[in-house]
Amino acid sequence: MRTALCDTLGIQYPIVGFTPSEHVAAAISRAGGLGVLGCVRFNDAVELDSVLDWMDANTGGRPYGVDVVMPATVPKEGTSMDLTKLIPDEHRAFVDRTLRELGVPELPDDAGEQAGVLGWLHSVARSHVEVALRHRIALIANALGSPPVDVIEQAHQHGVPVAALAGKAEHAVRHVDNGVDLVVAQGYEAGGHTGEIASMVLLPEIVDAVGARVPVLAAGGIGSGRQVAAAFALGAVGAWMGSYWLTTTEYLETMSESAAVQQALLAASSSDTVRTRIYTGKPARLLKTKWTQAWSTPDAPEPLPMPLQNLLVAPAHQRIHAAKDPAVVSMPVGQIVGRMNEVRPVADVMVDLLRDYEETLTRLDKTR
Amino acid sequence: MRTALCDTLGIQYPIVGFTPSEHVAAAISRAGGLGVLGCVRFNDAVELDSVLDWMDANTGGRPYGVDVVMPATVPKEGTSMDLTKLIPDEHRAFVDRTLRELGVPELPDDAGEQAGVLGWLHSVARSHVEVALRHRIALIANALGSPPVDVIEQAHQHGVPVAALAGKAEHAVRHVDNGVDLVVAQGYEAGGHTGEIASMVLLPEIVDAVGARVPVLAAGGIGSGRQVAAAFALGAVGAWMGSYWLTTTEYLETMSESAAVQQALLAASSSDTVRTRIYTGKPARLLKTKWTQAWSTPDAPEPLPMPLQNLLVAPAHQRIHAAKDPAVVSMPVGQIVGRMNEVRPVADVMVDLLRDYEETLTRLDKTR
Repeated sequence: MRTALCDTLGIQYPIVGFTPSEHVAAAISRAGGLGVLGCVRFNDAVELDSVLDWMDANTGGRPYGVDVVMPATVPKEGTSMDLTKLIPDEHRAFVDRTLRELGVPELPDDAGEQAGVLGWLHSVARSHVEVALRHRIALIANALGSPPVDVIEQAHQHGVPVAALAGKAEHAVRHVDNGVDLVVAQGYEAGGHTGEIASMVLLPEIVDAVGARVPVLAAGGIGSGRQVAAAFALGAVGAWMGSYWLTTTEYLETMSESAAVQQALLAASSSDTVRTRIYTGKPARLLKTKWTQAWSTPDAPEPLPMPLQNLLVAPAHQRIHAAKDPAVVSMPVGQIVGRMNEVRPVADVMVDLLRDYEETLTRLDKTR
Repeated sequence: MRTALCDTLGIQYPIVGFTPSEHVAAAISRAGGLGVLGCVRFNDAVELDSVLDWMDANTGGRPYGVDVVMPATVPKEGTSMDLTKLIPDEHRAFVDRTLRELGVPELPDDAGEQAGVLGWLHSVARSHVEVALRHRIALIANALGSPPVDVIEQAHQHGVPVAALAGKAEHAVRHVDNGVDLVVAQGYEAGGHTGEIASMVLLPEIVDAVGARVPVLAAGGIGSGRQVAAAFALGAVGAWMGSYWLTTTEYLETMSESAAVQQALLAASSSDTVRTRIYTGKPARLLKTKWTQAWSTPDAPEPLPMPLQNLLVAPAHQRIHAAKDPAVVSMPVGQIVGRMNEVRPVADVMVDLLRDYEETLTRLDKTR
């Protein structure tokens, strides 16, 4: 499995793996793909710095990337405290009532409530970029489309290419016009922020719109070599996989408290996801659980706009996470969750992808 | 382009084309695929009989099929009159008001209001099967999943295989257990009745569930050889295409009044569809127009269950059709509508599919 993307990024196989876990990211890079570490969980840039030190030492000298969350237009932004005041009481009351009804306990007094996930804030995402550019990163990806042009230029001054997600062809064109170097075509079936157009239709549209100018990667629904081959048939030169790594052995090394989440993912079918605004304020695909269902009842309030919704639910997420109940989980994941049925090392996943890809091409050859 | 499906159905290329137009269906069969004529528009079995006589004479001796709409369980069903009484006044008032607001004129007095589209009724669908089995059909497909077991047996007695649509793997298993011979895996991106799982994920699931027992065809988002290759990479042995034929030259030969519909389809992007229950009572993907938007306003009533919703909107469809306004159209179509940008003969579409398929396989070969 080899495309032009391998030369662009200096990798062996055109598999890019997004993950919030440095252990997973490093393992993907060591296995010949490009591990891309999600930065949104790092409220403190110093913590990110030390994790990237670890990445530098543990990827076997192979390239890796980072993923930030940064809108193209800089929002008016106060401190976390200012923003918190904008959250209506009705929303707070709904969250409190829902957690009580779902049997999610309060945190112990000594736990110390976190200040939300500040990585969604523009200033914090900028600090992630500053820190990342001090490390030997091979890619900065932005989960929200094109980052601001000055951030792209800053990356380019360090020789680092920038990737942006797109759910529509016109968005992809805008990203490339802004200077973005790689486009990730994110289909409806994908986990996290996603649009309404499925990969089967979206990929050729984006490839025809920008494929002559930049490499296009396929995101959404990929967990096997068959799916990589389908994505390449549709014109992608790389596969961007996120969800599928959540059930790897390495994931629990970073996310040691996530055993209940992994258990919920292993049990879910491809019908057990929902696209909703309750995670960040923008439509994102999540695992369907009692938590997401509570938000779709008639008495649930409308989710708030980004970044307020995440500030609202972040303390709830902390309580949900601590409760370790597989039935009450708040987790972005794509429809491929139906095929995430065992916990395996990253290297085994990669071997299977390559073998299945070869078998698929051999099978296709016989149709000529 | 050749798979085992070619031998199963006695066709040259594994392309199955669903269409309400006998001119399109015949042209697909003549071009080496299998044209499948949708029967739901025939209220009168005698009319279907004469159209199938025409098909027998105009497919150049090549095989063709028919598509009926038949639930697996026989519903309690009165006459059209009895059912009509079950439609609430609120719904009728909403339809009347909406048509007035959208500037859709009443029909002229001499037009004679049709009795709805009776093909959705079980008894009428059964009469379609009876009639079709008197012709040299090569396939009976059911747009609503497995038909009743006695209908499958009746088809088998005539040596005719039965195909059923499935939007979930468990539905596909049920269909095959009932005796269905081919499964059409209908992805989220497809037009008409469709589930929530996109083809990228759905196809391998259905292939792994039933692919060893029956051929699996891919439906949803297919309009190019790249997309056929992607579907085959995912494990399908045939492509089921519906939407894409709506902008062929032959379509207007049958549907002479549909120029406004074709105009609306040509102008639409892949974002201009919506999955809604307003057409039949079950979720179906339609072209997004002022008509579908009216049904998503806060004062719109909930759509009625099948078959009531279609009885409710059928007279409205007749008025909408007569008004010939591309902005007010009621038409099932998939997300591939974004690539339906010119009117071409069926034979040209087929030539392009084959050429693009070959080019895609050649391109994939270079990734090994």
